[in-house]
Amino acid sequence: MKCHIGDLYGMGQKPITFVQQVAAICAYPELLQSASMPEDSKRKAQSILQGLEGFGIGGYNLSYISYSIPEKVAKFIERRDGGIPSNPRNIVTYHGATLCIRSVMGLVATNEPLKTGVLVPVPHYPVYTNALVLADVVKVPYQLDEGNDWVLDVQELRRALQEGREHCIPKVLCIINPGNPTGQVQSRKCIEDVIRFAAEESLLLFADEVLQDLVFGAGHDFHSFKKVLFEMGPKYSSRVQLISCFSISQGFIGEYGLSAGCIEYVNIDPLVMDCTTNTITPGHPTVLGHIAMDILMAPPLPGDPSYHSFMEEKQRTIESLAENARLMEEIFCQVPGIYCSPIRGSMYAFPRIDIPEKAVKQAQEEGMEPDVFFCYKLLEETGVILAAGSAFGQAEGTYHFRLTFLPPKKKLKTILQSIKDFQKKFLEEYS
Amino acid sequence: MKCHIGDLYGMGQKPITFVQQVAAICAYPELLQSASMPEDSKRKAQSILQGLEGFGIGGYNLSYISYSIPEKVAKFIERRDGGIPSNPRNIVTYHGATLCIRSVMGLVATNEPLKTGVLVPVPHYPVYTNALVLADVVKVPYQLDEGNDWVLDVQELRRALQEGREHCIPKVLCIINPGNPTGQVQSRKCIEDVIRFAAEESLLLFADEVLQDLVFGAGHDFHSFKKVLFEMGPKYSSRVQLISCFSISQGFIGEYGLSAGCIEYVNIDPLVMDCTTNTITPGHPTVLGHIAMDILMAPPLPGDPSYHSFMEEKQRTIESLAENARLMEEIFCQVPGIYCSPIRGSMYAFPRIDIPEKAVKQAQEEGMEPDVFFCYKLLEETGVILAAGSAFGQAEGTYHFRLTFLPPKKKLKTILQSIKDFQKKFLEEYS
Repeated sequence: MKCHIGDLYGMGQKPITFVQQVAAICAYPELLQSASMPEDSKRKAQSILQGLEGFGIGGYNLSYISYSIPEKVAKFIERRDGGIPSNPRNIVTYHGATLCIRSVMGLVATNEPLKTGVLVPVPHYPVYTNALVLADVVKVPYQLDEGNDWVLDVQELRRALQEGREHCIPKVLCIINPGNPTGQVQSRKCIEDVIRFAAEESLLLFADEVLQDLVFGAGHDFHSFKKVLFEMGPKYSSRVQLISCFSISQGFIGEYGLSAGCIEYVNIDPLVMDCTTNTITPGHPTVLGHIAMDILMAPPLPGDPSYHSFMEEKQRTIESLAENARLMEEIFCQVPGIYCSPIRGSMYAFPRIDIPEKAVKQAQEEGMEPDVFFCYKLLEETGVILAAGSAFGQAEGTYHFRLTFLPPKKKLKTILQSIKDFQKKFLEEYS
Repeated sequence: MKCHIGDLYGMGQKPITFVQQVAAICAYPELLQSASMPEDSKRKAQSILQGLEGFGIGGYNLSYISYSIPEKVAKFIERRDGGIPSNPRNIVTYHGATLCIRSVMGLVATNEPLKTGVLVPVPHYPVYTNALVLADVVKVPYQLDEGNDWVLDVQELRRALQEGREHCIPKVLCIINPGNPTGQVQSRKCIEDVIRFAAEESLLLFADEVLQDLVFGAGHDFHSFKKVLFEMGPKYSSRVQLISCFSISQGFIGEYGLSAGCIEYVNIDPLVMDCTTNTITPGHPTVLGHIAMDILMAPPLPGDPSYHSFMEEKQRTIESLAENARLMEEIFCQVPGIYCSPIRGSMYAFPRIDIPEKAVKQAQEEGMEPDVFFCYKLLEETGVILAAGSAFGQAEGTYHFRLTFLPPKKKLKTILQSIKDFQKKFLEEYS
């Protein structure tokens, strides 16, 4: 039972029918004649196909990819951010967040007089570690405050920056919001503090907002860095450099089969944008990926025949995740030795676990991290796969696992029950 | 009129219906119930969907991507190479050849005691230049013999290697076959010579065979490096390191909307394969891209209802390219100042052009390469877009352009006529 990766549809959430239909018609335009497709899916597909060259999705379609889609994304961002302008020229699409993160890190890397440093949260999903190693830049870790629902504290940023400056030149500050693996959603106040800090210290902000659609904690809305930055006035909005990214593979549309995401640049020199874009472009999404993004940016409107089912399916996914998150908190808070912060969004949780001294010793004897040892034992015993916390980074002497709460409720219940029973036995066996 | 990029479907070749149908059904499995889809498209889609997890193409489907597809690719390669074994563990898929080339170049790069050198043909398509710059490795150019139909001559390889060794450590030899931009298909004898040379000089062979499906010169069959290597016996096949790659976006299936390719490793250390695979993986094709590859690897068989139309559509594309290539040769050989080698495959030609001294001077005054000047003038005058030879590399003092002969015959005729008329005027104006 896989709980270690965020595989929305692979784990049993249902895809959005409208997206499937429009993608199918675009893949095989003969379906425009088919009675089995609803009229407004055909209308949407028709309007997309009219913007494509030659024989539809098979062509390069550079103008669709480079002009039409960025325009639609910009409009979407403007709606999301209450009217704050977004310029299509500052938008570029990518095939996967991993490629995007690697491209950006590759471009900030220098060696002289010291290596570039990049501030990343601890914990963070492993893509960051790999990207930093490949780009040959130095990881400057800052700790999220687990005792305080994984809040980002500017004092800790300041400490990390100072320490980093002793051995590299920190230039970039990465924030993952909503958090992966931690599932927190940073408050508006926190984001303002971070922006002020970035302005003072001349750091480029890299806001990883790929999970922005998955927020469900009451009173914990998602605030985009772009919006907050512009609402703080020109003192900040005219000079803080920001790269923010989001994805259609990690929202309520989890179309890994189509896969697409995009970046918005703010206050980045056009020459630098060109370079970044050039390194990202080979990792452009497919034309069908762009089409999925097209649908997300311009979904059915009230009055369209597909409006209700689209909204219902979207809500169904988000509510099912919210419910699952509550279920998980509820069960974990009954388990001695498992501590789970409240989940406000994302599809992940990162509970802390007690691992008895005796188990730590045995893990060391077997050449494993103690949390890896825990996850192996759990897998052998129950068939449940978790991701060990050490792959994400964690405060010394603490142990965690990342688990996704995507599986359907009934299955998730069984999984949580297995973990609960296992932890009880595990604590007994090694205490 | 675009003739500068190899955009198969964007330029009007017709896609393969079976691929479109299966992709559409996989994108929206409800279509399995639709009367408008032929039975064997449904059967193929059904068999693919059975191997997918959760809700079809939306999931990560790692086992389909990492196990099923490599197995199918290995079988396809075995068939292609007359039974020479192919191990699925040596196969990894990628989203685009650009990402693949960049990954491989990134992994051979070192700095000590000197930078890594990579032998590349001149001319070569610009992806190589970018990949080498980004990987910080040194380009070691070897010249293809234009006077001899762009043949690859081992004497020239030896000269280039020797020269390269003065300032870098050449480790990799890239061959593009069929050629891009040159459209030649290397002979079996040439490939044997290259393999012997690579063995003597301990060079890793990087065989860019993405255009292997597009070969139509009588007596000029495509020979894969893998096949020739193994037919040369264990003295070579047990030790020459080979990475070969091909693509479904550049064959008779030009599905850029689905986009997928793959690598086969031969004699590469498993640890190195792991590293390469790790850097390529984020650029995995989408699930639909893998499905298109699935169809290419296991197309309809004789007796299947779609067999005839599949084969007909495949042949139609290849024959239309062969015809276009002939038409192009025919027209260009009537034009004073344009010299076009015979085209044996690919979708490109790279004719040499005379540019009068006066035009060269004016180009220099305007800060342009002379062939860029030629292409600009042509564009202004006729609306035809060509790619200037200087982006591909060319022998000093010679000028070329790359043109794709993908457009439908009638349109291509108009384009070629425009180029012919323009060149006449151009020569008159500047002589």
